Amino acid sequence: MTPFETIQSAVQSLNWDKTPQGLYEPIDYALSSGGKRLRPALVIMASDMFGGNREKALPAALALEIFHNFTLLHDDVMDHAATRRGRPTVHKQFGTNAAILSGDQMLIEAYAQLEAIETDKLPQVIHWFSQMATQICEGQQLDVDFEQKTDVTIDDYLYMIRLKTSVLLANALRTGAYLANATTQQQNLLYEFGINIGIAFQLQDDLLDVYGNPDTFGKKIGGDIMEGKKTFLYLTAQAQNNNLLEKALKEKDKIHAVTQVYNQLDVRQTTEKEIVNFTNKALQCLDNIQVSDNLKQPLRDIAFKLTKRND
Amino acid sequence: MTPFETIQSAVQSLNWDKTPQGLYEPIDYALSSGGKRLRPALVIMASDMFGGNREKALPAALALEIFHNFTLLHDDVMDHAATRRGRPTVHKQFGTNAAILSGDQMLIEAYAQLEAIETDKLPQVIHWFSQMATQICEGQQLDVDFEQKTDVTIDDYLYMIRLKTSVLLANALRTGAYLANATTQQQNLLYEFGINIGIAFQLQDDLLDVYGNPDTFGKKIGGDIMEGKKTFLYLTAQAQNNNLLEKALKEKDKIHAVTQVYNQLDVRQTTEKEIVNFTNKALQCLDNIQVSDNLKQPLRDIAFKLTKRND
Repeated sequence: MTPFETIQSAVQSLNWDKTPQGLYEPIDYALSSGGKRLRPALVIMASDMFGGNREKALPAALALEIFHNFTLLHDDVMDHAATRRGRPTVHKQFGTNAAILSGDQMLIEAYAQLEAIETDKLPQVIHWFSQMATQICEGQQLDVDFEQKTDVTIDDYLYMIRLKTSVLLANALRTGAYLANATTQQQNLLYEFGINIGIAFQLQDDLLDVYGNPDTFGKKIGGDIMEGKKTFLYLTAQAQNNNLLEKALKEKDKIHAVTQVYNQLDVRQTTEKEIVNFTNKALQCLDNIQVSDNLKQPLRDIAFKLTKRND
Repeated sequence: MTPFETIQSAVQSLNWDKTPQGLYEPIDYALSSGGKRLRPALVIMASDMFGGNREKALPAALALEIFHNFTLLHDDVMDHAATRRGRPTVHKQFGTNAAILSGDQMLIEAYAQLEAIETDKLPQVIHWFSQMATQICEGQQLDVDFEQKTDVTIDDYLYMIRLKTSVLLANALRTGAYLANATTQQQNLLYEFGINIGIAFQLQDDLLDVYGNPDTFGKKIGGDIMEGKKTFLYLTAQAQNNNLLEKALKEKDKIHAVTQVYNQLDVRQTTEKEIVNFTNKALQCLDNIQVSDNLKQPLRDIAFKLTKRND
């Protein structure tokens, strides 16, 4: 089985047919909506890389998948998002209170999954898990703070997406490696690999919002521009010519005007360069891990796939 | 130091002066608003009872206090409650999104506290903690479900408050005893003690809503009646004479009319009898624990105090 198949089958075998139904049905809905299952698959891939037992890696993988979906659920409440993965969001489907309470229960379920980890490895895995969860909440808060701030730097932004997006991927990989008895150095290299592909992934997402293929992107092109979101593209343009960007943001056809500014300032090329830069950093980490090349291939594939999707 | 002083000083020494401030300030606000600190004090009391080291009990005590305040924070969002402990609720003070996200972070912080527990005891304490947290979410969901249901029985109600209120007290006691190396039987007896005082406590709360002293009750008398809340009093009256209750609920002065029905049906006496009943069950559990009487006194005092407050 591929790591994705292992995960998919494990997620499907979770039992949410419990009472009170009002608590568990939204969880079932959230977890059955598909999604890439990327994070739990990374746990398995990292474990595979060091010859680990998939059964031993599964609890951590499920915990991270449930946790990830918990964050989506509460984020959607906070953002008043109406759809996710082509379906109504949980709060649209079941109400805001259900989304809050079932989200809380998902966070508890994520921790409960970790109980199945071997006792001698449990303290470390739980410590990393809580640390990661805290960083993700901090990243979410910074993202909110940035909406009001006018002096966000590119470094601020990279720090924020490191917390909001990267640490989950990084921790998935580190935990998988740890459970498969990799060395501390190997764990750390995979962690850094995860940090860097996470950043590359987010910059790619920022890029696709403007330059993506409308047929395959999944979201409306220019959504970030409409919301005035401080993406990597926005901040790159702002750093180069704030006046020009400000003026474009006041235009009636904001998406067109801002895209023109991006074109004029070569923002696309700058962003693409940074994506390559972070992807290369990630691949460098992978290169430095002393295991045979074929064992690294699944993660190498992920690095390329993640940063070139929907092009 | 009394258990309450130990807890108070530990809660005050938690550091929330961290960034991003938007995430941690609401947590500081929620935890500095006082409250009885009953739950963490129960951990210490149970530990004291078996000669345990308070330092070793503190992480679990703090985890339960932070967890309890997390539930209040999210419950207040779901109930649209405006005030708590004489101050604006977190969502009124900082906004709904801050209350959701900071609440999530509190749940994570609660788990993070548990990391300080001795490694060999960590798996059991975490297992109990997640089990308890799940039961409390289930209890909250049942409470919501009961608002719509017309056929709630007294047993349904007792089951709901067992989950929503009792298991937190029970788990605090059991965990404190476990950390102080009490026997399994002693842990279980304290757990049952907690279950029973929790139910007695909730019935007392239901009673005070109608028959409390307006000067000392803290809330408006008759609030539950106005909301049509299915309390022990309501369900007792309904079981005896549903028509009479239904008619009273349609009266203009609902609080007066329903109170009259309660008086007519001796609902006050029935409730008081049940409070004594559950308190006696709790004290019976305490009696069955083989430690010297003076070591049981703090918990005996709690049992009397909890169920006779504000009379």
